[in-house]
Amino acid sequence: MPTHFELLRSSAPDAPRRGRLVTEHGTFQTPGFAPCATAGSVKGLLPEQVTASGTELILGNTYHLALRPGADLVRDAGGLHRFMGWKGPILTDSGGYQVFSLAGKRAITNDGVSFAGPDSGQELFLSPLTALEIQRDLGSDIAMVLDECPPHACSRQQLERAHSRTLSWARTARTIHRDWGGIDRGQALFGIVQGGGERELREQSCDELVALDFDGYAIGGASVGEPKPEMHATIGWCTPRLPEDRIRYLMGVGDPDDLVLAVCRGVDIFDCVAPTRHGRNNRVWVPQGTLNLKNAQHRESFVPLQAGCACPACSNFTRAYIRHLAVAKEMLGGILQSLHNLWFLQSLMRGLRERIETGSTRDDLLAWFRADYPGWSTDRAT
Amino acid sequence: MPTHFELLRSSAPDAPRRGRLVTEHGTFQTPGFAPCATAGSVKGLLPEQVTASGTELILGNTYHLALRPGADLVRDAGGLHRFMGWKGPILTDSGGYQVFSLAGKRAITNDGVSFAGPDSGQELFLSPLTALEIQRDLGSDIAMVLDECPPHACSRQQLERAHSRTLSWARTARTIHRDWGGIDRGQALFGIVQGGGERELREQSCDELVALDFDGYAIGGASVGEPKPEMHATIGWCTPRLPEDRIRYLMGVGDPDDLVLAVCRGVDIFDCVAPTRHGRNNRVWVPQGTLNLKNAQHRESFVPLQAGCACPACSNFTRAYIRHLAVAKEMLGGILQSLHNLWFLQSLMRGLRERIETGSTRDDLLAWFRADYPGWSTDRAT
Repeated sequence: MPTHFELLRSSAPDAPRRGRLVTEHGTFQTPGFAPCATAGSVKGLLPEQVTASGTELILGNTYHLALRPGADLVRDAGGLHRFMGWKGPILTDSGGYQVFSLAGKRAITNDGVSFAGPDSGQELFLSPLTALEIQRDLGSDIAMVLDECPPHACSRQQLERAHSRTLSWARTARTIHRDWGGIDRGQALFGIVQGGGERELREQSCDELVALDFDGYAIGGASVGEPKPEMHATIGWCTPRLPEDRIRYLMGVGDPDDLVLAVCRGVDIFDCVAPTRHGRNNRVWVPQGTLNLKNAQHRESFVPLQAGCACPACSNFTRAYIRHLAVAKEMLGGILQSLHNLWFLQSLMRGLRERIETGSTRDDLLAWFRADYPGWSTDRAT
Repeated sequence: MPTHFELLRSSAPDAPRRGRLVTEHGTFQTPGFAPCATAGSVKGLLPEQVTASGTELILGNTYHLALRPGADLVRDAGGLHRFMGWKGPILTDSGGYQVFSLAGKRAITNDGVSFAGPDSGQELFLSPLTALEIQRDLGSDIAMVLDECPPHACSRQQLERAHSRTLSWARTARTIHRDWGGIDRGQALFGIVQGGGERELREQSCDELVALDFDGYAIGGASVGEPKPEMHATIGWCTPRLPEDRIRYLMGVGDPDDLVLAVCRGVDIFDCVAPTRHGRNNRVWVPQGTLNLKNAQHRESFVPLQAGCACPACSNFTRAYIRHLAVAKEMLGGILQSLHNLWFLQSLMRGLRERIETGSTRDDLLAWFRADYPGWSTDRAT
């Protein structure tokens, strides 16, 4: 059975949906969250610990892996799954976002973008073709087209140029992927909706990508510094125009309230570094909001990070202990907090899935979230 | 049943021995190795990962824990076992070694040593009494007397003064511990043999400590910069004079060859940061010696760190992957290498125990080690 999306429950193109993506490496349930294994590991965690959190899909970064260790090495290792010991599905991005946000010197033309890696100074060239070649070497279950990701504060002219270049690259990538055998070869290809905060560009982007008939559709540019209400407005412009039977992916978004709001608008999958990055920075997600664990108020707090949480941190340790680890800069502090944040998010996603399965509407989901996660405002929804 | 040592097999006071120490928190087999949980965690590892390596005993550091989070906090948490989630036996040192090797300004008198912590500037006073009080708060299964640990390169006069002060402190500590109820209260107390590289002082130290009838005997000053042959000569002076039915502990030593040589002279337990510190520094122990994993030769090495090793790193990952993590400075690299080094050492200790049980002599053990661990010279033994 080739890779395909099964929509299990949906009432409208922009309503909360329940589905699953079936791949050669297993199935993941949607709505679902994919933690980032940026450079080939979910930072600080063993694959078995990631799996135990309820994670079924992870993201690997083309930009990071192409620079180091190199796509050829990962290919020779048998692909990213074998290289990093992750048995489930893997999604790779195209490197576009990182080239524009992280790389040093870069030169962009209609053919692609050449850039120097920040550490090695190694020169790399990303085009619609090479981005796909790298992702083919990595052997991910889902590949993304190369896109140009302009900063939030850019001119209309810049935005339009990026928009039309992204669409042109999407057409090229779609053709290459079809020539290679398409999704039947085991790797799905997603188009990426761009267009910044301009409704007209976003809608045009949706329509042109849908005409190209991708295996799934990503909404890009959601984590480039735009204000949150604008991000949610953008999602609301896109999902009604995307085909109901194809999976939708909001890139780089991982705050709990943002996931709930996007799920309410019909988004299926998400990726973000937030659970592990916050974990390493001693920011702990609980239903009441975010704890800063180094705060002195937790010094003698002999209770779990979150009452009732089944994660390895909450099952075995107190806030006082994990705070001590944080203050003493012990690695285990970041590990335990990363584990908790990931479990927290996966528990939230499970809660959403269960409720959508039993017929909860957008309003039901928001009411549940407000009641059970009182520290997370969703006022920005409206 | 109160804490006690059972000698299962021994042919002479300075021959390889097999035994076990029974404590309220479980039993550990000897010869045995205790990794350091310096500040309340074996760096980077969850307690369950430490247990899975075959570790039965860990060490907590009085100096570090008294400065941060403070012995009172650990006591209020229910003791170090509960605080850090370690269910097995715990050994604590007295803080003496760290005061002399790590602390900033310090003032030493016959009553004890006052010092400022390196980070907080907090003033602490360690005396034979306060070192025991702190360890009582920590609730370890084995406590150590306060000792003065002079550097390797000190004058004979300095050495003699430290020697007589250490013995005086040992007498004081022994009396206090007896007044508190002794080992029947659940915490054993070990004396520490000092005397540097001076045979006469070491022998005198052994005899006087044995007269005080401690629950076990540690050999101190073995990791203060002396050359290795001198360390092994020192061990050879001490073990023949220690009672055969009491446990012996070589402090701060963890290199595989040193463990084998010390076991051959009748030492029972060891502690060291080496497995995890080397692991974080990309130095990997294998029977053929120490791998520097960042070395380019491992770049495309799609084999485990060590063939046949059952550790989580070798069971699931290749040298090429772990090298990539090391080069990319991913936390998981240090974690996997720490796990491997710890499994490597515990596998070595298990091999020694099995061979001593079936009657192997010192020569048998050395021959086995030379054959099975060809990269580790034991020439310094002779």
